Amino acid sequence: MSITAQPSRNGVDTATLFATLDAVKGQNEIAKFQFRAQNNWVSGTHSRSTISGFYGATQEMAHKHETVLDSDHPEVLVGKDNAPTPVEYVLHALASCLTAGIANIAAARGVTLTKVSSTVEGDIDLLGILGLSDGAVRNGYQGVRVTFHIEGDADDETLRGIVEQSRRRSAVYDVLTNPTPVSVDVVTG
Amino acid sequence: MSITAQPSRNGVDTATLFATLDAVKGQNEIAKFQFRAQNNWVSGTHSRSTISGFYGATQEMAHKHETVLDSDHPEVLVGKDNAPTPVEYVLHALASCLTAGIANIAAARGVTLTKVSSTVEGDIDLLGILGLSDGAVRNGYQGVRVTFHIEGDADDETLRGIVEQSRRRSAVYDVLTNPTPVSVDVVTG
Repeated sequence: MSITAQPSRNGVDTATLFATLDAVKGQNEIAKFQFRAQNNWVSGTHSRSTISGFYGATQEMAHKHETVLDSDHPEVLVGKDNAPTPVEYVLHALASCLTAGIANIAAARGVTLTKVSSTVEGDIDLLGILGLSDGAVRNGYQGVRVTFHIEGDADDETLRGIVEQSRRRSAVYDVLTNPTPVSVDVVTG
Repeated sequence: MSITAQPSRNGVDTATLFATLDAVKGQNEIAKFQFRAQNNWVSGTHSRSTISGFYGATQEMAHKHETVLDSDHPEVLVGKDNAPTPVEYVLHALASCLTAGIANIAAARGVTLTKVSSTVEGDIDLLGILGLSDGAVRNGYQGVRVTFHIEGDADDETLRGIVEQSRRRSAVYDVLTNPTPVSVDVVTG
């Protein structure tokens, strides 16, 4: 018999999740985060980013592990295919953001999930980035489709509602579907 | 003495780059690509994507290597910090897309680069994704700043012009700064 239960569902510590929500309600400043990446060009279309530090909860923080990520273009696009393309990383970001939300929201709603998998497809016409369309074709994805397979101890409607709520609260879904201000500054020499 | 020169600059095979542009001009269908990611939930906010196959140049293709990418939330956001957050992958995607363009454009313009590095910062107020702002705070980044350090055998204006042209032709910059249609479908049970 323990007095302080530690409810965990879907690998989500729901007690801490709700406590975090309460803490942020009490001090909105905790919610201001800044994430960062540092990238170095390697050769050709190959570059490498490191991800480590970030700001959040009113202080400088760091991930437990620094992560190194490479990008390249495939050979058919005159790269060396050392790594995924930048636009494929965007698809991973979208899938993983929606999936994290699904696990949290399901836990908060008392639903135990047994499976969440997804496929993401993004269609892109390279006439845009190659500058061969006179501006008629955009540079980025013309459309992105995510398909989730989700299983758990809830009915169809409840499971669909969890995915929908995750979409409504997803940072990456927002960044893709709505305009985000991006500045590009240059220091030379 | 060779008759067929193979000019390579910045690790970019410029002869093949221009030949590819000519091929696409002759057959626009070559430029239609589809990129994909497949994601599986692991536990809590931790999930894992694999990136391997894609469609392009009128056929199914595959990267030389399959890539596995993990995402998680940091502990301060009630995750286990097994990997970068989804929104940090977006910053890597942006930096690496702009950098690949810089190398290609510099090569096409006859500029030899000696260094390209960048830092990307994205500000996000988690009141949005936590549902604590009554919709006043967006879920995604409120702003993203990229700062390039670039060096090469060209003057300041030329180097800045290369970065600017890369921005104008960047797929990920477009996806972030302009709306992209995203559909989310669900299969249950």
